[in-house]
Amino acid sequence: MTAVDEKINGVMMLVNDRRWVDVRRLLSSWPPPEIADLISSLKEDPQRILLLRFLPRHLAAGVFSELTPAIQDELLEELTNTEIRTLLADLDPDDRTALMEEMPAEMTRKLLNLLTPNDLKETRVLLGYPENSVGRVMTPDIVYIKEDWSVREAIEHIRNTGRDSETINVVYITDSVGMLIDEITLRQLVLASPEQRIRSLMDYNFIAISAMDDQEEAVRMIKKYNYLALPVVDSAGVILGIVTIDDLMDIADIEATEDFQKISGLSIEPDGDPITNIREASFGLLYKRRIFWLVLLVFANIFTGAGIALYEDAIAQTVALVFFLPLLIASGGNSGSQSATLMVRALATGDVNMKDWGGMLTKETLVGSALGAVMAAAAAALGIFRGGLKLALVVGVSMFLIVIVGSLAGMCLPFIMRKFGRDPATACTPIVTTIADICGVLIYFSIATIVL
Amino acid sequence: MTAVDEKINGVMMLVNDRRWVDVRRLLSSWPPPEIADLISSLKEDPQRILLLRFLPRHLAAGVFSELTPAIQDELLEELTNTEIRTLLADLDPDDRTALMEEMPAEMTRKLLNLLTPNDLKETRVLLGYPENSVGRVMTPDIVYIKEDWSVREAIEHIRNTGRDSETINVVYITDSVGMLIDEITLRQLVLASPEQRIRSLMDYNFIAISAMDDQEEAVRMIKKYNYLALPVVDSAGVILGIVTIDDLMDIADIEATEDFQKISGLSIEPDGDPITNIREASFGLLYKRRIFWLVLLVFANIFTGAGIALYEDAIAQTVALVFFLPLLIASGGNSGSQSATLMVRALATGDVNMKDWGGMLTKETLVGSALGAVMAAAAAALGIFRGGLKLALVVGVSMFLIVIVGSLAGMCLPFIMRKFGRDPATACTPIVTTIADICGVLIYFSIATIVL
Repeated sequence: MTAVDEKINGVMMLVNDRRWVDVRRLLSSWPPPEIADLISSLKEDPQRILLLRFLPRHLAAGVFSELTPAIQDELLEELTNTEIRTLLADLDPDDRTALMEEMPAEMTRKLLNLLTPNDLKETRVLLGYPENSVGRVMTPDIVYIKEDWSVREAIEHIRNTGRDSETINVVYITDSVGMLIDEITLRQLVLASPEQRIRSLMDYNFIAISAMDDQEEAVRMIKKYNYLALPVVDSAGVILGIVTIDDLMDIADIEATEDFQKISGLSIEPDGDPITNIREASFGLLYKRRIFWLVLLVFANIFTGAGIALYEDAIAQTVALVFFLPLLIASGGNSGSQSATLMVRALATGDVNMKDWGGMLTKETLVGSALGAVMAAAAAALGIFRGGLKLALVVGVSMFLIVIVGSLAGMCLPFIMRKFGRDPATACTPIVTTIADICGVLIYFSIATIVL
Repeated sequence: MTAVDEKINGVMMLVNDRRWVDVRRLLSSWPPPEIADLISSLKEDPQRILLLRFLPRHLAAGVFSELTPAIQDELLEELTNTEIRTLLADLDPDDRTALMEEMPAEMTRKLLNLLTPNDLKETRVLLGYPENSVGRVMTPDIVYIKEDWSVREAIEHIRNTGRDSETINVVYITDSVGMLIDEITLRQLVLASPEQRIRSLMDYNFIAISAMDDQEEAVRMIKKYNYLALPVVDSAGVILGIVTIDDLMDIADIEATEDFQKISGLSIEPDGDPITNIREASFGLLYKRRIFWLVLLVFANIFTGAGIALYEDAIAQTVALVFFLPLLIASGGNSGSQSATLMVRALATGDVNMKDWGGMLTKETLVGSALGAVMAAAAAALGIFRGGLKLALVVGVSMFLIVIVGSLAGMCLPFIMRKFGRDPATACTPIVTTIADICGVLIYFSIATIVL
């Protein structure tokens, strides 16, 4: 049992005894994510809502935003309109937008009606940006200062306006029309002397991202420049908000999970999310995500069967040929999956892009040939043992060619997918395996007919 | 061409004309990662070293730490001892440790000799922590304050000592023996009134990680608590330094790349790194990483061949059986790869752990059966078309069973790997495919012998 589990068990005993005042006192010093764990682990619904109601107000919104959408929905159904109004007002703007996106449409409408006019405007703006755009995850609550202020004035301004901002580690300097002209860290302000002008601290050197850019671009940018937050601007350079590194880290994490799932043949719609809570994922969801490519590839395998049928007579004459069929096609698939996975990940991290295709092709041909040669030797040894020299020759040569074809197919498929505007990860491994199967059957049996 | 490419082209023209003073002036406002890109894209070595020498001193270390180890080594060979000494002194401690780890042993010894006594002591400490431990990536340059100080005194102290610290967004409160007792943000200090006592701002509520903990644990922790830096403590609770979210984001990224490569059957030693620069990866490295599992699985496939040999007579009688062999074993492999990938990623993100094995097994049996039933229907339809009702029955029943066996094998393998202390990702997909091949052959032909 971890330390967190033990803490949770302690509170659970108080909850079971309905000693709510003690619960409230105890929880007031807990970090919100742990209180969220506690609420999730409560089984009876009345306890969940009671616990949320008994939390000190300054904690409730932070805890609520850490809960899963299913539990959020359940709790919102129980809360009164007044309670929801307070909760919504306390949520950070980006958490509020996330909540709107995740709730069923009916609940979203109800929530929008309970927002204050200002929050409603803010949420509408955030919801107006395309799915997966930077605009959807930015927070507009930041501090702006002017270049002709003194450091003392800037710090005074931060004291007055900074309390509600999500971060004030960086403050942004804008001109008279709101254009971003520089950024400066709170650290620089604290280290500077109070009488210095802001202008004297500026180097007019900053990085910004467009609200319409893809979130993946923001992830790449923040990794490259080692920032803690990126300013978000519109097409005219006017600052709209910031996107913070902790949100981008979560996005990078979900993108990686999505690639893992897509690459193994789970189908995820362009705007959909990967399965991130597999313990609670429903039977229906798992089935729906997995069945599409599995059945499609059953039909793609018609070609493997048809290929074999072409060589029915050869097989009837030398049944020993069949012994090596699974080995050969599996080897082509294994080698192809390796190169496909390497490429999908390299394309996702930006390590390679379309213009590297040619160069990678040459290298893959060399590596594939070397791998094929060693695997051919191993397969030929098995061939001698089971069917003599001639069979060994057929198996060895086939292995060599199948591994090269499999490797090249695996390397090229992600590039081809991207060329046609698809995600390179899409069902990459099973498609490559199927291609290797089909090519493998044709290569193996045609060499066998020639030699035997 | 991107905006960055264009900027680089502009400087390249100046470099080619050897207008070094203009280069220096132009680059002084560039972010270090872009200057590093520029140095990497220079082809002739004398230009690289000249560019580094002409950089303003405050930029040189930041640029140097962004270069690849190969280029760093090349440049260090060219620099004089005095130049190296300055460069090392300007590097952040964690970048300095990373450099020592990445250089060949001979260069590391040379570098250690050129460190100042203080930096040497610090680097030795950092290098003393195990590979992949938090101690290796922490930075000891942070600001400590005492609880009985006023906010004014704390800010004064930060002004005096904070200039060399990697971050002062969070300052740490320690007791007389250096034990961490709380943390407080620079933001809180700036928002508080100058005469307030630090004690009045404290809530004695903080999260810390041990220097000996695995870096993956730090990644999980910072994701859960949404911090920008985690304090690192020794076993007695004394604070040693911090690990920052940007370093942890890079680590999370490399861990994901490692899992992608391992899962597809690339071999990476426990202390090794995944291939992160595939364009420059040598033929030898790619070959070495890929060959091990490919050849091992060739020999594992002896069992598939041996399985088929058992049923040689049945095959000779009904050659049409062979048509469906690749389809059936590929389907088992595809379905197994899906569940294996889902589990490997869920184990890596901490979404499931060992105690969920039982629950997942039940769900996987249900999902596998449903998938198997639909795929069996599809395969049986192909079977009728090609060999009549009896063959359709054999193919359908085999498909149903093979998909269930493949799914369960794929789901269990990552748990079994972890149970035996191995990385669940290790060669997961090709092993599952091979298991599905072997079981598939046995299931298919034994059902065929019974029915036909």
